[in-house]
Amino acid sequence: MQRLSQLSSHLGLDPVDRSALSSAPTPHQKSSPANTNINTTTPTNMSKPKVIVTRQLIDEAQRILDEKKDELEIVQWHSEKPCPRTWLLENIPSASGLLCMLSDQINTELLDAAGANLKTIASFSVGTDHIDRPALKDRGIRLGYTPTCLTDAVADLTVMLILMAQRRGGEAIGKVVAGEWPQMPWHPLLMTGPGLRGSTVGFLGFGRIAQAALVRLLPFGIKRAVYLTSKPGQKVKEDHFDLLSTAKVPIEPAQSADQLAAESDVVVVGCALTKDTKHLVSTEFFKKMKKLAVVVNIARGPVIDTNALVKALDEEQIFGAGLDVIENEPNIQADHPILKQPRCVLVPHIGSATIETREQMATESVKNLLAGLSGDKMVNEVEL
Amino acid sequence: MQRLSQLSSHLGLDPVDRSALSSAPTPHQKSSPANTNINTTTPTNMSKPKVIVTRQLIDEAQRILDEKKDELEIVQWHSEKPCPRTWLLENIPSASGLLCMLSDQINTELLDAAGANLKTIASFSVGTDHIDRPALKDRGIRLGYTPTCLTDAVADLTVMLILMAQRRGGEAIGKVVAGEWPQMPWHPLLMTGPGLRGSTVGFLGFGRIAQAALVRLLPFGIKRAVYLTSKPGQKVKEDHFDLLSTAKVPIEPAQSADQLAAESDVVVVGCALTKDTKHLVSTEFFKKMKKLAVVVNIARGPVIDTNALVKALDEEQIFGAGLDVIENEPNIQADHPILKQPRCVLVPHIGSATIETREQMATESVKNLLAGLSGDKMVNEVEL
Repeated sequence: MQRLSQLSSHLGLDPVDRSALSSAPTPHQKSSPANTNINTTTPTNMSKPKVIVTRQLIDEAQRILDEKKDELEIVQWHSEKPCPRTWLLENIPSASGLLCMLSDQINTELLDAAGANLKTIASFSVGTDHIDRPALKDRGIRLGYTPTCLTDAVADLTVMLILMAQRRGGEAIGKVVAGEWPQMPWHPLLMTGPGLRGSTVGFLGFGRIAQAALVRLLPFGIKRAVYLTSKPGQKVKEDHFDLLSTAKVPIEPAQSADQLAAESDVVVVGCALTKDTKHLVSTEFFKKMKKLAVVVNIARGPVIDTNALVKALDEEQIFGAGLDVIENEPNIQADHPILKQPRCVLVPHIGSATIETREQMATESVKNLLAGLSGDKMVNEVEL
Repeated sequence: MQRLSQLSSHLGLDPVDRSALSSAPTPHQKSSPANTNINTTTPTNMSKPKVIVTRQLIDEAQRILDEKKDELEIVQWHSEKPCPRTWLLENIPSASGLLCMLSDQINTELLDAAGANLKTIASFSVGTDHIDRPALKDRGIRLGYTPTCLTDAVADLTVMLILMAQRRGGEAIGKVVAGEWPQMPWHPLLMTGPGLRGSTVGFLGFGRIAQAALVRLLPFGIKRAVYLTSKPGQKVKEDHFDLLSTAKVPIEPAQSADQLAAESDVVVVGCALTKDTKHLVSTEFFKKMKKLAVVVNIARGPVIDTNALVKALDEEQIFGAGLDVIENEPNIQADHPILKQPRCVLVPHIGSATIETREQMATESVKNLLAGLSGDKMVNEVEL
C-alpha cells in the first residue's frame, strides 16, 4: 500500500488541504456550540434595509460591501463553505436584497419566507438554474448575474485541454507518478501526439468563449476554423474580437455536424445544452472524425454521449479527449469508465476557476445587489 | 488494492501498451534464436557504399531511404527499439555512412571498428552529447543533426505547462481520478489559480523556442515580456518571428536574474545548460519570485535546483511549476519528493514528441545522410 499512499499524496488526496491561497479569506473559526451565529455579522440597526449575503466574499468585493455598513443592515455568512439552509430561512424574512451562490436554492419556500420587502437578488453565477425565475417575475424581483467575466478563464482552459489531449498530458503525468520513466526506452514515436500547426479546428457553438479560444489558437499555426451554430451554413453575427474580418486563415460556417466532424483535427464543444445539442457528439459523430483528432468539452457535459466517447477511445476512432464537464458531474466515482481511458483528461469543471475571474464575479455581484436596491442599472441583469 | 488497480489503469500502467499509433512502424517480429539478424536488412551487393541505420524510420523517411536501395547497401535495424551495441559493432566495419539515434554512443571504439570508409554520420537528434565530436573532427567525418524542426512542438508544450501550472492541472486530474469530485463542495476559490491576462512573462534564455512560445502567449493578454540572456540588459539580436518590432506589449531585456524573478508572473526556463546556468533557479531566486507566480522548465533539468523547488512549493513561495525536464532524468522513482507536490506537474521530456516533428526529424536525418555521402549541403550540419 506504500505506493498508493505515495500516489495519493501526489494526487492531492492529503487530508490537509494545501489549496488555500494566501489571498483567500481566513477560514471561519470553529463555532462554539452555544452560539451557532458566530459566523454571521450581527445586525446593528433594524431600520436600515437588510441584505443577506450567503458567503464570505473575496477582498475587493467584501470591501465594497463593507463600505455600505452605515446604509445597510448586512447579514452575512462569513465562511468559504455554503451556509445551512436553516440559517438562510431564519435570516431572510424582511430582507430587501440577497446575494447568493449557485449552491443556494432560490425557490418559493425561500421567497415566501422573505416576504414582500425582497426586491433584488444578485447571484454569483453565470447559470441561474438554481433560481425559480418565473416566481421572481411574479413578485417583481430583479435578478443580477455574472455571465461575462469568465471568458478569459474558460478560453485559457480550452487551450490547455486541447494541448493535453494532443500531447497526452494525463498519460504522461501518470507514467512519471507511477515511477515508469526510468523504464521507458526512447524511440522516435514514444509518447508522441499530433501537433496544432496546420490543423483545422471545429467549434460546436461559436459564441464569445469559442471565439476567444480561437484568438489564442491562431499563433499556434492552425490552418482553418469551422463552426456550427443553430443556423448551419450561416455566418455568425457577433464577431467579438474582430476575428472574422482580420484573421489570416479561413473561418467558415459548417453545413452540418457531419462536415465539422470529418474536417476537424480538433473539435471544441462550446455550445449551450438544448434538446438539439444533447448527445450531438455521438457514436455517429466519432465515426466521422479523423483518427488523430481530439475533442474538448468546455460547455455542458451532456452534449457528448459519454458511452460513445469511451467506445471511440477504446476503439481508437479518435486520438484523445479533454473534458472540463461530463454527464452526471460531479458524481464521477473512481471506477467511472472514462477514468480508465489514458487518452482522456477530465478536470472538475474548473473552467472559470481563476482568482481574477472569481474576484470579478464577486465584485459584480455586489454591484448588482447595490444597483438593485437603489433602482440603478445592474452590470448584468437577467430578463425575466 | 482495487483502487490502486483502477488508478493504475487510468494512469496508463496497463501491461498492454496502447500508445502505438496507426501510422507507427510494425513492431519487430520475435527473433528466432537461430538467426539473430532477422531484424536487419540483408545486404545484397557488396560493391555499393554501405550505410548503417540503427532504427526503423517513420513512413516518409523510410520511403526516401528505400528509394536509394539500388545505389546503397542499406543495413538497417528494423525495430522501434534500440539496436544492441553488438549488432552495431558487427555491422559498422567498412560503412560509409551511419544514421544513428541519441541512444547510440558514437565513440572511438565505434569509429575504430568502422574504419577509414566512414565519412558521414547523421544523428536523429537535437543534442549531440552522445557523439565524440573531436574524434569525428580528427577523422574528417561530417556530422548532421536536426535542431530546427522541434520549435513548434516545444513551444506548444511550454504553453501547456504554463496553463497546467496556473490552473492546477495535475492536482485537478488527480482529484477526479481519486473519486473526490462528488465530495468537493463548491466555493468561490475552489481550485482557482492565477490567469494569464495581465501577467508578465520572464524568459531565462530567449532563443527560437522561447520566442515561439511568446508568439503563442501574446493573445492570452499578457502585459509584458522580459528576458535574460548571457548579455544582461542587452537586446537579443535574433528576432525570429519579427516579435520585437511588431508586438504591442513591451519585450525587454532584464538586467539580472533577480529582476526577472521579482517582476515575472510566469518564468520560462529556456536556456542552454552551462556552468553559469546550472542551478540559476535556486532558493535565492524563488525567494524573489511572486507568491502567485509559476515556473516552467522546457530546457534542461539542472537549470533548476530541484531541492530548492520542492522547498519553494512546500513553503508556498511560488504558486506552481510545470516541468518537461528535471535533474537526473529519467531516473525519477515514484518516491521522488517532487512527485509529492500537488502543484507541480512533471512530464517525461516529451517537448519534441509530436508525430509531425519526429517525422520531420527522420526525414531530415535521411537527407543529411545522403548529402554527407554525396558531398552536398546538409539540412543542418554541426561545425566540428
